[in-house]
Amino acid sequence: MTQEPRMVLVRQNILKQNDVTARQLRERFREAGVFVVSLVSSPGAGKTALLERTLTRLGGTHSVAALVGDLATDNDAVRLARSNAPVRQITTGTTCHLEAAMVETALAGWDLGRLDYLFIENVGNLVCPASYDLGENLRLVILSVTEGEDKPLKYPTIFNSADVAVVTKIDLAAAVEFDYHAAERNVHAVRPGMPILSVSSKTDAGMDDYLEFLAARLAEARMAARP
Amino acid sequence: MTQEPRMVLVRQNILKQNDVTARQLRERFREAGVFVVSLVSSPGAGKTALLERTLTRLGGTHSVAALVGDLATDNDAVRLARSNAPVRQITTGTTCHLEAAMVETALAGWDLGRLDYLFIENVGNLVCPASYDLGENLRLVILSVTEGEDKPLKYPTIFNSADVAVVTKIDLAAAVEFDYHAAERNVHAVRPGMPILSVSSKTDAGMDDYLEFLAARLAEARMAARP
Repeated sequence: MTQEPRMVLVRQNILKQNDVTARQLRERFREAGVFVVSLVSSPGAGKTALLERTLTRLGGTHSVAALVGDLATDNDAVRLARSNAPVRQITTGTTCHLEAAMVETALAGWDLGRLDYLFIENVGNLVCPASYDLGENLRLVILSVTEGEDKPLKYPTIFNSADVAVVTKIDLAAAVEFDYHAAERNVHAVRPGMPILSVSSKTDAGMDDYLEFLAARLAEARMAARP
Repeated sequence: MTQEPRMVLVRQNILKQNDVTARQLRERFREAGVFVVSLVSSPGAGKTALLERTLTRLGGTHSVAALVGDLATDNDAVRLARSNAPVRQITTGTTCHLEAAMVETALAGWDLGRLDYLFIENVGNLVCPASYDLGENLRLVILSVTEGEDKPLKYPTIFNSADVAVVTKIDLAAAVEFDYHAAERNVHAVRPGMPILSVSSKTDAGMDDYLEFLAARLAEARMAARP
């Protein structure tokens, strides 16, 4: 504990460097006209399943690609590649979150100008990714019904760092006695007015609304980028 | 990323200091004759529900207490206090894991010699707690059926740091099509021979075996501590 002040200082420097890189990425994404959506959640909340459905459904009409972060394995990239979208795995080793520089490296050789959407799936962690800007347009915090309604109160930082909450696995809501209104109340206690979407990647429930939401945000971003 | 070597150095110093404190805690626990069990998992995997059942069921015959870690709120301590066991909340702020020094501070004024079991519930995080020894006798890594069978492969470090895997929410296994054998295979791919227990805190399924397992480990530890 005696090293704490030094630790904080080093962490601040890393965060500062990350912010610089994230700003460069954001500018690059804007110039390329690609809309970048990142996904953060606990391990097992259903990020990859949601992303798989998203890539498959958007793939017919849009140009989409994804980067997926994990400590180990390329299971998620293999799984997502079934959608036929270009997917790259970022393996972080023991690092508990993605950083902007990892995203930058992973994008090498990709022509961003050809993409409509780029999705970035973070490492499963409801704490550490909160502090790292990845230059994304939109950050989705995923909350599965099986995790319980109290997560926003217990992990407020990540809910504060995100733009939208997406409740997943709603096909299981009855089985786990999920109280949607309690969850909504808790999200809004931390982040008043935060949009909340609900989906099931298994039954496709809510997916139309979710995809329309993304399309509207993409359209807004393109409108704003017009000279 | 340029600060990485310095970051690694500072982190090593912190881990070294943590190990010193954890060793002191372990010695103190041994002298007091208390058996210390820590729980690590993703957010929402059911640590608190398992702990609540554990404290309630053990409370009739044993002297038990618990420390619970969260970034924010004392919800878990309030919830666990219903078991009538002494419970203290450790609020970590933005720190994504418990450290030995936090445990040491939280124990102030408790007579450990009167306890049979002390449980320590870590912050919900499947990455960062792996590196921090808390002086516990036994570390349980909790894996809920709703998270999927692949978690050991994707978060190998935490499975390597634990002694036992506990599969929770088995009442939901059929609803989520949980493949127990795949999960077992993945646990053992990372950690050959690791004991795996299965429980439902809701239906009490598997709880007898789980409590017997703890009792056997407590008996072993007391046997080993005899002069």
